[in-house]
Order: sequence, then structure tokens, then C-alpha cells
Amino acid sequence: MAELQTLKYGTEDCYPSRIYSKPVRIPRQDPVVYSKASDNAPLTAAQIAEYERKGFLFLDDLFTQQELALMIEEMQRMREDPSIKNREESITEQNSGAVRSVFSLHTLSDVFAKLAEDPRLVAIAEYLLGDKVYIHQSRLNYKPGFSGKEFFWHSDFETWHTEDGMPRMRALSMSIALTKNEAQNGPLMLIPGSHKSFISCVGETPKNHHLHSLKKQEFGVPDEQSLIQMVREGGIETAIGPLGRITLFDCNTMHGSNGNITPNPRSNLFFVFNAVSNQVTNPFAKVPARPEYIGTRDSIKPLKSVIFN
Amino acid sequence: MAELQTLKYGTEDCYPSRIYSKPVRIPRQDPVVYSKASDNAPLTAAQIAEYERKGFLFLDDLFTQQELALMIEEMQRMREDPSIKNREESITEQNSGAVRSVFSLHTLSDVFAKLAEDPRLVAIAEYLLGDKVYIHQSRLNYKPGFSGKEFFWHSDFETWHTEDGMPRMRALSMSIALTKNEAQNGPLMLIPGSHKSFISCVGETPKNHHLHSLKKQEFGVPDEQSLIQMVREGGIETAIGPLGRITLFDCNTMHGSNGNITPNPRSNLFFVFNAVSNQVTNPFAKVPARPEYIGTRDSIKPLKSVIFN
Repeated sequence: MAELQTLKYGTEDCYPSRIYSKPVRIPRQDPVVYSKASDNAPLTAAQIAEYERKGFLFLDDLFTQQELALMIEEMQRMREDPSIKNREESITEQNSGAVRSVFSLHTLSDVFAKLAEDPRLVAIAEYLLGDKVYIHQSRLNYKPGFSGKEFFWHSDFETWHTEDGMPRMRALSMSIALTKNEAQNGPLMLIPGSHKSFISCVGETPKNHHLHSLKKQEFGVPDEQSLIQMVREGGIETAIGPLGRITLFDCNTMHGSNGNITPNPRSNLFFVFNAVSNQVTNPFAKVPARPEYIGTRDSIKPLKSVIFN
Repeated sequence: MAELQTLKYGTEDCYPSRIYSKPVRIPRQDPVVYSKASDNAPLTAAQIAEYERKGFLFLDDLFTQQELALMIEEMQRMREDPSIKNREESITEQNSGAVRSVFSLHTLSDVFAKLAEDPRLVAIAEYLLGDKVYIHQSRLNYKPGFSGKEFFWHSDFETWHTEDGMPRMRALSMSIALTKNEAQNGPLMLIPGSHKSFISCVGETPKNHHLHSLKKQEFGVPDEQSLIQMVREGGIETAIGPLGRITLFDCNTMHGSNGNITPNPRSNLFFVFNAVSNQVTNPFAKVPARPEYIGTRDSIKPLKSVIFN
């Protein structure tokens, strides 16, 4: 692990959290888009500008119907496979015991391993992050009908920084909708512009926090006043859209979702791409690192480069 | 109370619930609209037809801006008044302790007592129910920002019948929006057409059920298969709309709401109008009747008639 200390940025804590007794709003100290404008960019200039400004972007029609059918079939297979349900990679609902998430899809499934390396996705991640990339985390999120629980507002980066040791904001998520996302079934909500500042949260991180936080968040929770201010500035956008839509969002974009009492489940596939130069070091919260299936640490494999090779 | 037994319909249990070991779907045995078409009707023929078919109707622009401002002021006053917060009429959130509902508004507030007698509201209730009417229940629902909890699908009539002894489906609710109802802040969801059948729920009613059910529903809960079928038939409509919108809905229309993690609260005022000929008898679940502030029993006062006087 010694070589992980020789980071481009050093291991200085630019985004302290869970340290102060009051919440602090810290300006972002990193670019959002790391590459210069280029005719070869995998996104249009308007898309890039929108991503830079809002911290997220919706992409439709990237996959064929056959590709989506294959993903859905694999999702169903994994959810019903008892050998997967009983693995530590599977997170179940606190009350119902239903599968809520399966982590490390790219190591548990050949179909999803191939999808993570899809040049259409890798090109976008490499372009925005200006580097070769690897999968820091992947997961299947399943919000079942009737009993899907809410997920409170959070910045993924806050957790990845404090609990995984991700040094800087040079990562992004792609959420692929494997059901229609409707206004009523607990869709992802995002706060435009929230990625431009970091909310330093209050409260220390207990050991083995991940065993609970994946079910119910209690630490690393942004304060209400900061959220009220961010919503006043940027409003809330909801990722309502068709099957197959990709919601591309910066690692620091504030997001969350309401519960789901409708009969309609909501399923999404998540890939987190991190820049190879931004690989994790020791957790900044000075807690033991989370397991490999939640945050890649030992088995960093740069994805086959599309743009820079 | 003896005279309450001499009901027009008798006290036969036409809608048994919490009795059988399996859920049963029973066809509605009562009209939805009790009056004949008339040029004097307070709703258009199209509105009446829509209400009959869907079991609900949205009405905008009934109140002036001044009237709405007065209602909001009174709502704020009541929520902040410690002498009201500590009354049994006030229901608080299970976790946060924040006020979620205040019952019996029409007895606690002169402003809302006057509103309940407003001829614009009374005329609609009398027309649809074909009778003089009284307030069976009134309440202020406040879904606070960040921590507003979900309310699972239910038919109000199922509760009013089993726990309050309301004999037949001859009541309706008017919900007046005192905030904007947005897609994201846990708005009311309704299943069109669900009022045309009664879901007989499984499970006996424990004594003093109302002390818990107003916070978290556990009995009188419709089964998932019936809900899936109803949503397949009618879909889900969401009461998204401006401040002041009235959602008028039949006592048996299936409705519920998701939680609310947004900073924006959602407040509504509810009046339940019941036909004088449909006043309550002994609860059909054979439990002690709920308190007067939840279901009017002893102090039935017909509202000043608009159409029939």
C-alpha cells in the first residue's frame, strides 16, 4: 500500500468532515470537467457546460433494447440467486429483509463487468475526469414496491473521502435506470450546483459504520440549514425518465430519494468511475478502510482507455 | 344515543373488514353521486361525471388570496401554540416530535369553524351526498420538510366504518392545499376508480388502535395484491397543484403519500363531510368508539343547508 501515499495531490485533507462541532460549507477546490474542449469529446459542448454548471446530466438512447433486456435479465437473476442474497455484498431492507443493493457487480457478474468497460461509458468518464479511470464502486440499487425506504440527502464524496480515503473530487457516477423512473416511485433527486461546495458534516465516524450506514445514514449527514440554502440557490431536479436513461453525476452532487409506497419498484445500476491519479489512500476519518467490495483499494484495474490510448 | 340506531339503512354490516382471514374485494353498494343532474348543481356536468368515475376531483380558484392568507396565518398560529401542541387533538411525528396533524379544527379555531360552513363547500358536499351534511372529522395535516413520513395506502371509509361505525359510503373529504403540493414533497396520491370496490382487510382491530394508527398504520391495511390490481386498472394520480387547490374525494377512494426529505413542508386542511342520514352507529369492528375529536358522534350539528333549505 506504500505507493498509494505518493499521490499527485499528496494526502492533505482538503475536505475535512466529521471533525468540527458545527457544519462548514467549503468551496470546491477541484475542477468539475478536467479535459479541455475538443472536437473528439464524447459529449457536446452544451452537455459539458450543463454538467459543469449543474453537477449532473441525463443521457438517453445510449443502449439498444437488446442491451437493456440483457441487463434486466441479469439483474433479476442476481436478485433471485440465493448465493448472492446471502453474500456480504448484498444489503437488505431494515424491515422487510428484501434485497436493496448488491455491491461489486463488476466482480460478481460477467455481464456487468463487460458493461463497466463499455467504451461509450469509459470515454465519457475519461473525458470528464481527464485521466484513465477504474471502478471505485459498483452496485445494483433496488427500491421495491410498497416498502422502498427513503435515502436522505448526501454527497457520495463526503463518504468516499472520510471512510474510503478518496483524496479529491475527481470521480463520477453513472446510474443506469433499469425500470422507468416515475415521480411517484421514489426517484433520485439532485440539487443543481451543490457540487460546487463541500458540506463538512458534524459528528465522528464510528468503527464499522458501513454495516449500518448502508441501511440508514446517521453520520456524514449534511445539516438542514446548508440543504435549505443549497435548494434555495439551485432547486431540486428529479431523475424521472425512461428505462435505460443514464444519470451522470459528479461525486460531490447532493442527492437523495424519498420512499416508495407504490407497487412499482425502481431499479438502477450504479458505476462509480474514479481517476487513476485519485486512487484512495488511508480514510481521512482515521477509521479502518471499508471492505474492498464497497471501495476498491487493493485491486485497482484501470479500464481499457478509449480516448488516451 | 338510542336514536342513532334508527338509521335509514339499518345497522347491517355491508362492508365487513378485519374479520376474514383473506382479503376480499367487495363491490360498492352505494351511489357515488346522490343527487340527480340539475341546472342548479354547484359543479359542472363534466366535473360530476369525473368525480363519479375517478372518485376524486381537483378544484382551483375557489378561494381568494386574502382567504388563503388568513387560513395560512391561522394554521401557523395553531402549530406554534403550545396549548394546542399539548392537546390530545395534536398528533406528533414518531421520531422528531414535530406536529403532524391537529384534529377537530372546526371546534378549536373560529377561522376554520367558519370555513367548514362556507356555502361554497357545503353546497358541493350537499349536492354530491344528496342530504344535509355535518363534519365527521376535520384536521390539519402538516408534512414537515426533511422528516415527513409516508402514509401507506388506505380507504378512509374502511377506518370510519370499522372504528367509528359509519354505516355506508355517503361521505367525502375536501383537502385544501395550504402549501404548493409538488411532486417531490410527498403529495397525496390517489387510485382512480378504487372507490368502486371495498377492500375487506385482514387482521383484528386492537383496542385503542387510534393512538398508534394515526402515527403508523398497522391494521385496516389493504393487501398488496388488491393494490397491484387497482393500480393496474386505474393507475395513480398525484394531487400536485397550487396553493388553495381543493382535492375533493370520496370516502372510499384509495389514497396514500410518500415521505418527504425535501426542505419544503406540505400542509393541507381536511374536512370530512358526512350525510346526516349516514351518522355513525356502534363501530362495526366491535371496539370502543374513537374519541369525539376523531369521529363526531355526540355533537352532530348539521351545517346550514345551502341547496335544500
